[in-house]
Amino acid sequence: MPDKPSFGLSCPVPITNHDVITLGHGGGGRLMHSLLDRVVIPAFGNQPIESRHDGAVLPLGQGKLAFTTDSYVVHPLFFPGGDIGTLAVTGTVNDLAMCGARPLYLSAGFILEEGLPVATLERVVASMAKVAQAANVRIVTGDTKVVDRGKGDGLFVNTAGIGVIEHDLVIGPASVRPGDAILLSGDVGRHGVAVMAVREGLQFETTIETDCAPLAEPVLALLRAGIRVRCLRDLTRGGLATTLIEIAESSLLHVEIRERDIAVEESVNGACEILGLDPLYLANEGRFVAFVPAAQSQQALEILRAHSVSAQAAVIGVVSESPAALVTLLSRIGTKRVLDMHSGEQLPRIC
Amino acid sequence: MPDKPSFGLSCPVPITNHDVITLGHGGGGRLMHSLLDRVVIPAFGNQPIESRHDGAVLPLGQGKLAFTTDSYVVHPLFFPGGDIGTLAVTGTVNDLAMCGARPLYLSAGFILEEGLPVATLERVVASMAKVAQAANVRIVTGDTKVVDRGKGDGLFVNTAGIGVIEHDLVIGPASVRPGDAILLSGDVGRHGVAVMAVREGLQFETTIETDCAPLAEPVLALLRAGIRVRCLRDLTRGGLATTLIEIAESSLLHVEIRERDIAVEESVNGACEILGLDPLYLANEGRFVAFVPAAQSQQALEILRAHSVSAQAAVIGVVSESPAALVTLLSRIGTKRVLDMHSGEQLPRIC
Repeated sequence: MPDKPSFGLSCPVPITNHDVITLGHGGGGRLMHSLLDRVVIPAFGNQPIESRHDGAVLPLGQGKLAFTTDSYVVHPLFFPGGDIGTLAVTGTVNDLAMCGARPLYLSAGFILEEGLPVATLERVVASMAKVAQAANVRIVTGDTKVVDRGKGDGLFVNTAGIGVIEHDLVIGPASVRPGDAILLSGDVGRHGVAVMAVREGLQFETTIETDCAPLAEPVLALLRAGIRVRCLRDLTRGGLATTLIEIAESSLLHVEIRERDIAVEESVNGACEILGLDPLYLANEGRFVAFVPAAQSQQALEILRAHSVSAQAAVIGVVSESPAALVTLLSRIGTKRVLDMHSGEQLPRIC
Repeated sequence: MPDKPSFGLSCPVPITNHDVITLGHGGGGRLMHSLLDRVVIPAFGNQPIESRHDGAVLPLGQGKLAFTTDSYVVHPLFFPGGDIGTLAVTGTVNDLAMCGARPLYLSAGFILEEGLPVATLERVVASMAKVAQAANVRIVTGDTKVVDRGKGDGLFVNTAGIGVIEHDLVIGPASVRPGDAILLSGDVGRHGVAVMAVREGLQFETTIETDCAPLAEPVLALLRAGIRVRCLRDLTRGGLATTLIEIAESSLLHVEIRERDIAVEESVNGACEILGLDPLYLANEGRFVAFVPAAQSQQALEILRAHSVSAQAAVIGVVSESPAALVTLLSRIGTKRVLDMHSGEQLPRIC
């Protein structure tokens, strides 16, 4: 993973050890990057963690492994189309897929709050089992801890995952080249709105469901077909915009995207207008971008569209050279604007 | 991992989905076993997780991997001799070692509570880095989440770990045989008392420090020397007694131990008398038992004593056939008593 991030490019947020943690530090934006940059990564300093990918690619014997982890603290635990268990399996499977790995094994660590109904835990583990089966991974080890009432929030889940890498590509921002096409696997913003709506008790005409879904199948299909995939990222905390800004900053290139090619469901657009949210920054749990050579973009698009989870895939933009790393959005009316990374996250505890 | 547990042997604790989680469900005793047995393991049903070892042994290509996870919720975060970060690395390294694996890679997942001083996180990650270096493992991937004030307890840490298995032994309760010698790597009870003392503001004549330490070195030395290790377990939640009961129940054998051979520091004994605790049930974070063939017990003992972390190792008992799985303790005055598994844990949130 030779990609070297450059977090000094656009307005880093200073952090000192007199500071205290805020919700924004967990939001996936500048604040979280500063926390990682200033506190966590220097302590653990080594090449895989410095690459800041969502998973580490590791040598093991003759082969290569992918290894990743995520803790899930979504509030509320249940929302239309999924729950914390669905997320915990899907999210980690997807992080492995974004390393170009075939997901194999998951761990499950539970932090339960005293007073949690056992029935709630049962629902969550049933969801985890169901998604694990669908994604063809096995949950093989686990751990359970209990904290006192008032020292948790019902249930937190951590999953870690192991996958195997069966190709020789180096997938990451450093492999992105000017001219590469940017593919988006489907519409954006549904997970964020689905969680927000139930949290705030909002009713829309149609229930907006999370897009939460495992993504390994379309990714592995791209690799099997010989697509020279440059970079893959799922669009979780911070959404499409933050993901692209991270890639632009890491690759020191200009990412140009077109609003008209980015699908947003009408109901999601409507909810965003009411709530003052930007769908480009909303979390997704079943969407990803793939950077591929322009010459292979049509073939890649057809492969993605053959899988139900990415049936709505589209080419949304292109990479170009630039004196400064940046992401620009060409709006429907033909104006161009630079997308900035937010400081925190529009919606805390979205995953 | 062919070991098949038998949790029906001695007074299982019934659990229904009308129940709610109590602190005891996290204690490592009968309640936790019932929760796993009734709720978690049936949902994820597969061979590695059913073996209920602290880590899974997994095929990968030509070789075998060990994979494990633990969440750490110890309260308070800092205690004599260590902190939550020390524990989070040591505990997972030790779970890998107990699979007979050489620990290689760790993940680190943080759940931070809003308001946590950044300086606290800095101390914890510094501890993690220090122990990781001592244990020769790399923290290669991670995740950070933030929860609202009052929905966490400062800082929870999850680590997952990967190790390689470089031998052909099947290490686990099912490999234990009548006649095997039981080796204990050092004195017991210090971690439990160290945490309890600072939690309750107790002062003893000498400060009792946790025994927290990585255990892979002495274990790998046993394996390198050709000791046909049958079973390995570190003595965390539930302590020596609970660990041995689990092994006896899984192997359907009689584990006989001798009180006079089990080292307990005088200060720990004194604290236990005052607090009404039993050192055999107290959590340790740097102690393990090894079941080895009797003919190799002296050689194994010498190997363990050559490592500082297990310099006080002793043979504490023997395995025999029995009509019922049980653990008996021969007291200093020559009486024999059966050790029962407690329902919960004497001290909640000990790790």
